[in-house]
Amino acid sequence: MLTLDMIYDAQKALEGVARVTPLTPAKNLGKNIYIKAENLQLTGAFKLRGAYNKLRLLSEDERRRGVVACSAGNHAQGIALSASKLGIRSIICMPAGAPLSKVEATRNYGAEVVLVPGVYDDAAAYAEKMVSEQGYTFAHPFNDEAVMAGQGTIGLEILSQLPDVDQVVVSIGGGGLISGIGCAIKTLKPECRVIGVQAAGAASMYVSRREGKPTTLPSVSTIADGIAVKCPGDKTFEYCKKYVDEIVTVKEDEIATAILALMEDQKTVAEGAGAATVAAVMFGKVDVTGKKTVCVVSGGNIDVTTISRVITKGLTKTGRITEISTKIADKPGSLITLLQVVSKTGANIINISHSREDKQSDVTSCIVTMVLETRNLQHVDDIERELISAGYQML
Amino acid sequence: MLTLDMIYDAQKALEGVARVTPLTPAKNLGKNIYIKAENLQLTGAFKLRGAYNKLRLLSEDERRRGVVACSAGNHAQGIALSASKLGIRSIICMPAGAPLSKVEATRNYGAEVVLVPGVYDDAAAYAEKMVSEQGYTFAHPFNDEAVMAGQGTIGLEILSQLPDVDQVVVSIGGGGLISGIGCAIKTLKPECRVIGVQAAGAASMYVSRREGKPTTLPSVSTIADGIAVKCPGDKTFEYCKKYVDEIVTVKEDEIATAILALMEDQKTVAEGAGAATVAAVMFGKVDVTGKKTVCVVSGGNIDVTTISRVITKGLTKTGRITEISTKIADKPGSLITLLQVVSKTGANIINISHSREDKQSDVTSCIVTMVLETRNLQHVDDIERELISAGYQML
Repeated sequence: MLTLDMIYDAQKALEGVARVTPLTPAKNLGKNIYIKAENLQLTGAFKLRGAYNKLRLLSEDERRRGVVACSAGNHAQGIALSASKLGIRSIICMPAGAPLSKVEATRNYGAEVVLVPGVYDDAAAYAEKMVSEQGYTFAHPFNDEAVMAGQGTIGLEILSQLPDVDQVVVSIGGGGLISGIGCAIKTLKPECRVIGVQAAGAASMYVSRREGKPTTLPSVSTIADGIAVKCPGDKTFEYCKKYVDEIVTVKEDEIATAILALMEDQKTVAEGAGAATVAAVMFGKVDVTGKKTVCVVSGGNIDVTTISRVITKGLTKTGRITEISTKIADKPGSLITLLQVVSKTGANIINISHSREDKQSDVTSCIVTMVLETRNLQHVDDIERELISAGYQML
Repeated sequence: MLTLDMIYDAQKALEGVARVTPLTPAKNLGKNIYIKAENLQLTGAFKLRGAYNKLRLLSEDERRRGVVACSAGNHAQGIALSASKLGIRSIICMPAGAPLSKVEATRNYGAEVVLVPGVYDDAAAYAEKMVSEQGYTFAHPFNDEAVMAGQGTIGLEILSQLPDVDQVVVSIGGGGLISGIGCAIKTLKPECRVIGVQAAGAASMYVSRREGKPTTLPSVSTIADGIAVKCPGDKTFEYCKKYVDEIVTVKEDEIATAILALMEDQKTVAEGAGAATVAAVMFGKVDVTGKKTVCVVSGGNIDVTTISRVITKGLTKTGRITEISTKIADKPGSLITLLQVVSKTGANIINISHSREDKQSDVTSCIVTMVLETRNLQHVDDIERELISAGYQML
């Protein structure tokens, strides 16, 4: 049974190990919106808290034998660093295709990394085999009260940093984070709402709640890899039932837009799982009217190449980049005429391609595709209207 | 004359207007390295401090007539917000090609934006004309003691946040920021070193110091647009002589690498001018052995499309992405043989193009260009060596 005392106990143990992360107002998101910046936690994510709390509670014998975990993400780094700090041997199983940067980071924190051929499930099976055959302790990423108690320390910090908080928004993968935070908040301040957020493409807790039991999704797909979990734990499922008022979902382009907003407005780097809570607020999934709302930004370990893709997606979604294709006559001067229409609308052309070989063009015409820097979605509409009234066809 | 009293006075005036920004350890950069995060300042840059201090010191009459400034960057937003807070009319002249995002941001802070056809110098000339013909007060971005005193409050904050600081690293554009910080630091703690950083492509203060007088560069070119200044001010030149121990320069790819490191390790978004100080430390331009060193990260207003370019550049520089081209025989199976060699080295192929039309290929061969995800520069070397010993030619 997860209790407030376990969380207080974890808080004491984490002193000098995990950072007390800042809670900062995010004015650009709204007057009463705050961010709990777990992306600034050591290892770049909250997972360190639960991992350390789990490992420090192991028996002498368990410590001697070492721990094994299966993760190519934040849990891996949390376990690796915690084990190093406690002088425990740690082995992390990852699918062989895991990004090199994750492998390196985990090794640098002191773990041995085993690359298992196949996908995540193969790595998990291999980890299980190590546990049963070689006596390692398995460190579960979420379905473990010691882990949840560690994550719950975030709830204590929020209550001390913003005592008059009205609601806390937390992303859900397996449910360990929200179980811990929910227990802390609901025990100490029952009137404070606890709201869960899942990626629509990996809404296993959302579906499980509807079905009334832990339910496995056939597949999950989301940019928020930290919360791409097919099935919640049986324990976290029960704690969510007890402590979570509501679960909402956010779409991929909403998450991308939130990542971008955090970079541009808050100058902070969040991974998809971390930005999901901000997306829920930005896109009206959570009612924030008159309510002091804390969005837990759970981590910042986003692949930089993903950032590039997110930037493009986010700019498109908010109408600051738009791609327009049209057909022009294949004769001198046609392109200039088109560009003059575009120029009058105040859009900047940042890329243009002009092709005769497109399937849509006939012998006397060619296709022009322009990438434009625009002000907002209204501006995009205006440009299309201008082009249409000048006789151009939108392709 | 810039004095410590003016800076203390500015500090009092800025209470509740500018944020006291965090000073945080940056362990990944080194044991004794700290970041003064002015990218988390309101408006996303330190400029607000100097701008507000300037405007609040205007006479009643000057306030009534309004202010004009010329900037498409952080100074514009600093003036716009300060003027709004003080109830002063502000007009910002920008060259017509200024990014829409900058125009919008400046308008949102309450300024009127005048887009002047031409380049920066045309906008500046137009601003001057408004001053002489219509009686506005010109708000200079750096060559003004009231502005420097505002920026100097950062020096006071550093001394109170880290009393045993040994050296402070500050980027130099026009020199206002380092003049203010230098005055505060050198007056209160003369043994603390103050080190300036310039982009090698815009090293006007560096050159001026060598020449012994303010010197205008024929042109400047750097990703750090915030410090792309052709000529320092006559006043800032003198204060630099007095307060700055040393000026170093950093190259473009060093700045890009620092921007990337700040994103990945510190989860924070810095613009080029802000990351230049971190670049100086990362690339050994500043001796940090045994010295508590503060890098002032002056701002975070980097265009997100620039971030995309920086990511690619930074990954290449640190050997985490590499592009390799080679020639293979134009017959079935050749590509597979090549890929097998690459695969053995542990590199991930993230993009591949295979072309027969390249000028370097003859009739019986074709060119393969691969973009590889790699671990580091050593790994890149290993891959090239493997390929060469397998008989491939590096193009």
